[in-house]
Amino acid sequence: MKHTITFLPDNVTAVVNHGETLLGAAARAGVYVHACCGGDGVCGKCKVLVNKGEVRSDKANLKQEDWDKGYRLACRSAVESDMEVTIPELTTKGGRALKRKPKTTRTVSAKALDSLVGKWQVDPPVSKIYLELPPPTIEDNIADMQRVMRGIRQHFPEDHHREPYYDLPELIKYLPRTLRDADWKVTLLLLRGRNQGDTFRIIDIEAGDTTSRLYGLAVDIGTTTCSGVLIDLHSGEVLAESSGYNGQISFGEDVISRIIYAGRPGGLKALQAKVIGTINAIIEDICRQVVISPSDIAYMMAAGNTVMSHLLLGLDPKYLREAPYVPSVSEFPLTKAADLGLRTHPSTRLFLYPCVASYVGGDIVSGVHACQMAKSDKVSLFIDIGTNGEIVVGGKDWLVCAACSAGPAFEGGGIQYGMRATAGAIEKFQIHPETLEPMLVTVGQTKPSGICGSGLIAIVAELLENKVIDQQGKFRHDLDTPRVRSGSSGWEYVLAWEHNSMIGEDIILTEVDIDNLMRAKGAMYAGYQTLLESVGLSFADLEQVILAGNFGAYLDLEQAICIGLLPDIDREHFYYLGNASMLGCQISMTDMSRFREREGVRQLMTNMELSENPQFMQHYMAALFLPHTDMRLFPSIGRKLAGE
Amino acid sequence: MKHTITFLPDNVTAVVNHGETLLGAAARAGVYVHACCGGDGVCGKCKVLVNKGEVRSDKANLKQEDWDKGYRLACRSAVESDMEVTIPELTTKGGRALKRKPKTTRTVSAKALDSLVGKWQVDPPVSKIYLELPPPTIEDNIADMQRVMRGIRQHFPEDHHREPYYDLPELIKYLPRTLRDADWKVTLLLLRGRNQGDTFRIIDIEAGDTTSRLYGLAVDIGTTTCSGVLIDLHSGEVLAESSGYNGQISFGEDVISRIIYAGRPGGLKALQAKVIGTINAIIEDICRQVVISPSDIAYMMAAGNTVMSHLLLGLDPKYLREAPYVPSVSEFPLTKAADLGLRTHPSTRLFLYPCVASYVGGDIVSGVHACQMAKSDKVSLFIDIGTNGEIVVGGKDWLVCAACSAGPAFEGGGIQYGMRATAGAIEKFQIHPETLEPMLVTVGQTKPSGICGSGLIAIVAELLENKVIDQQGKFRHDLDTPRVRSGSSGWEYVLAWEHNSMIGEDIILTEVDIDNLMRAKGAMYAGYQTLLESVGLSFADLEQVILAGNFGAYLDLEQAICIGLLPDIDREHFYYLGNASMLGCQISMTDMSRFREREGVRQLMTNMELSENPQFMQHYMAALFLPHTDMRLFPSIGRKLAGE
Repeated sequence: MKHTITFLPDNVTAVVNHGETLLGAAARAGVYVHACCGGDGVCGKCKVLVNKGEVRSDKANLKQEDWDKGYRLACRSAVESDMEVTIPELTTKGGRALKRKPKTTRTVSAKALDSLVGKWQVDPPVSKIYLELPPPTIEDNIADMQRVMRGIRQHFPEDHHREPYYDLPELIKYLPRTLRDADWKVTLLLLRGRNQGDTFRIIDIEAGDTTSRLYGLAVDIGTTTCSGVLIDLHSGEVLAESSGYNGQISFGEDVISRIIYAGRPGGLKALQAKVIGTINAIIEDICRQVVISPSDIAYMMAAGNTVMSHLLLGLDPKYLREAPYVPSVSEFPLTKAADLGLRTHPSTRLFLYPCVASYVGGDIVSGVHACQMAKSDKVSLFIDIGTNGEIVVGGKDWLVCAACSAGPAFEGGGIQYGMRATAGAIEKFQIHPETLEPMLVTVGQTKPSGICGSGLIAIVAELLENKVIDQQGKFRHDLDTPRVRSGSSGWEYVLAWEHNSMIGEDIILTEVDIDNLMRAKGAMYAGYQTLLESVGLSFADLEQVILAGNFGAYLDLEQAICIGLLPDIDREHFYYLGNASMLGCQISMTDMSRFREREGVRQLMTNMELSENPQFMQHYMAALFLPHTDMRLFPSIGRKLAGE
Repeated sequence: MKHTITFLPDNVTAVVNHGETLLGAAARAGVYVHACCGGDGVCGKCKVLVNKGEVRSDKANLKQEDWDKGYRLACRSAVESDMEVTIPELTTKGGRALKRKPKTTRTVSAKALDSLVGKWQVDPPVSKIYLELPPPTIEDNIADMQRVMRGIRQHFPEDHHREPYYDLPELIKYLPRTLRDADWKVTLLLLRGRNQGDTFRIIDIEAGDTTSRLYGLAVDIGTTTCSGVLIDLHSGEVLAESSGYNGQISFGEDVISRIIYAGRPGGLKALQAKVIGTINAIIEDICRQVVISPSDIAYMMAAGNTVMSHLLLGLDPKYLREAPYVPSVSEFPLTKAADLGLRTHPSTRLFLYPCVASYVGGDIVSGVHACQMAKSDKVSLFIDIGTNGEIVVGGKDWLVCAACSAGPAFEGGGIQYGMRATAGAIEKFQIHPETLEPMLVTVGQTKPSGICGSGLIAIVAELLENKVIDQQGKFRHDLDTPRVRSGSSGWEYVLAWEHNSMIGEDIILTEVDIDNLMRAKGAMYAGYQTLLESVGLSFADLEQVILAGNFGAYLDLEQAICIGLLPDIDREHFYYLGNASMLGCQISMTDMSRFREREGVRQLMTNMELSENPQFMQHYMAALFLPHTDMRLFPSIGRKLAGE
């Protein structure tokens, strides 16, 4: 359920989900509310006056008299209806009321993805049929398996002239017992062939009629996080979700350190065991949620980057890192999940999305597949931002792709107070244009303990827009605020004072941090440019920009454009795809005809190596500026910075 | 090299192999030579006078004066050229020279099998291709496996539009290392698909050009003995052979006792381990003979009866023994040999011939396939004699088959001095028509220690023909020989006196033994009759009788007909196929187009259960006579017994 909130006195509106906080709504709408404790309710600064509508609130640090007057703390108030609220006027130190500058562009959000992804059928790669077989007699004593085959032929009188395959020895070992215990009434689990017209394979037999139970697990194997989604393959419905850190983290944060670890004695096996353990924990959690057995999972569809895919299968990732960057394999055959150590039915198959190159993996193919850009007449730019940013440009006739090493800034790495997007990480940020006081919203709405990637972008964008820093990312030294100061490693901005911080010290952003962010966003932007130029196009030709990945989902579009991470084109062209890798898996597992397209998608994708590309280096150098040295590429930001 | 021997004074000729003994030649020609020590050279009775030709002889127990006269011991003389020899006249106790009765029919032998089996192509289910791949560069850095695939597509520009399958994870794990170590020059081992037009599968990759090395192992898995034959899949040539007792023997001699053992805790696993161990020993022996590694074996083609097939795959044989006698599976999918514990390359596939029913197994299908009766216009009777005798009748339009439980007599079981056909077993036997003295030839030409199946048939046939026993299998009590006597379990014939026997006691044949043999041969004969009648035919309609199995190969046709084990029809119709099960495996492994026919053969075969068939029981009762109660079925034997 959605609600509309009107913020006075600026008369800005925001559409929010039922239950969202007023602080979150204000942040989204670009309305500044004084909030310095991250949403924890302790600073008591974010009080707003509720004029109309319902909120569920607790008092926290709000004074009784304010409560009685109708004030509520924005961070502790869940929206339960359409509302109108008034933000109290701030005063200058001199007592003068400050005029707020409405930030109208901030309400632009990327489009929903339905138009992009389209509908899919429920026609999964596994199916079940229920057979009531005649028991054997002395006149009809064919083998159990041949009796089953005969039953299948009678069940599909038209379609199946060719004998199905079946799993040996797993299936036959329990077939005779199952048939007799079930009085010859059994359900078969069938796996469809790789190509249209291929014969299928019997992978399981169950006593009685179990056709109503048919589940599939989609798995996204991230370097940092692995997630699983359980899907009812009869309805296509998502029944449960779970995720967890990839257990390999203990052997290194990024893919390079994992590759190095894999080269140590026993390292490869250990890494494989860790990710298998992580997925097993996800399976266990999901099965507990919906009360099914892991052996009820009939199919698994997974995607991960090339290194993660290699490690999952126990393949040495060594050559991925050495020029000329060659994977062992890029199209992975269907494998038995149990053979890898996954706690599933012994016959459950795991499909792993094909990779394109060492640094353009199955997660990207899955995402590109999900968003259907390989079937579109439009020219699309697909972006997955991370330590390794992946970029795909093209449409139905061709796709070029590349990976660029952006460094860890987007994941909070290399930033003094950087952290992952866990509880306490500043993820939304605004600055009061005159007082330069911050408005912080943290993950989990606790006191702040650091800055995550999306927070970093928001902070730098706000600092730039409010001229606290210049386009080179350097602090102005002439500002009348204690928050901008010269610290031990140069000039810095204090995001939270010690007493409002979870970690008991000031949380700051330094010029070094800003530099790191510029390098990261510069690499991404240079990547777009290089790819587009390689096919003779420019940003003006882009008809769709598709943001994949969890990071993309948290990105404030306007802020990302402001720092030069995303191109400054019509905001209507942007789409948030969220976890596109997972979405591709979900769709493929649910719809066999979509699934069969993935090979074509992968084959359409031509990889470009940027690491040794002189064009790329040139673009990269030019992008080390906020938003860019060539302001003609960022006309709207130019106008904004000029105060137009 | 073959030689012709003429035996005087009866002027009987025999064609023998170079190096065969004169005693063996005489036994084959039906010429009686006094030989009571089994060919060991100790009794010194079998002396013959060499008139012409070369023998390689040792003196053994022969007197010097005899040696100087040109006498030689038949059992110690290897034929090295065409020869003429004179058998000394025997005298009666009264000193009168005995007139020998020539046994002309004894020279009839079944035909060679070439006309039956025909020629086959060398076009095996596995092949090798050698590729020199371009090393990867930064412009061409596709995955290793995709580089291999591209190489294959270039190698087969016409044929292979579909991507081959490949083995995961075995192959990919060593692919990158192998490619680089071999400087991108590699040989691929390819497995062809099940059906014409199916895509193939890459199952191995080797450094350098190894295309000249391509071997297959054919395996016959017998209840008693397992054998292996190594074939060069480039030439189709047999390179080496080996065999050994099936290690399961320690858990029971016959299939029924094995099934019972499999029902004990851990029994099934133990039985599987034993036969795997037996085959591993065969692999090891063969590889040592030709100096290859077990991992050089690219394919295995095996056949065994239904129980042996189940045990090899670790399938519970329980239901094979319980009415209505249902196998778990009768068409076995291709399986990885290493998964079963066989010491081969991890990717080597094992094909196991399909079974028809619980007691008509893959060995029979393989044999029927080998002899091509399912493609013949003629009506054939295929017989594999053993504890479970299997019978197949038909031609290209239909085949009916059945198993009949003959009991263990053919394997020496249930016979007082019965034994397997190992050293010391009497395998050939003649009796002097007047002295009733025996002529024994044993396996390995040692002193006799017992009677094997073929010896038993020979002994009973001789005793019958010489009227030592009557047609009910009872001894005449009025004979003037110490060899026929009343012993502790009734009347008996002394085959070897204590001092000529290996075991230090008289070796005898009793009426109980003869009874057991009659039941065994009666079951077989009743089986032929019941099957023929079920399709409205009689023995007169038979155009081919094909004797399969090792036992069949040792059978003296005339003796077998004489006791009623084989039908009394034109001897020209008989063929010895030898180890037909092995032959079928050899052919299928060498010739893919023949291999593809085996499914059709199996499907043409309709099983009949004899165990509860009243017709069968009636025929069986009528057959408990020598050769049969209905002598119209055995006209030639009737004439012979009448002395015509």
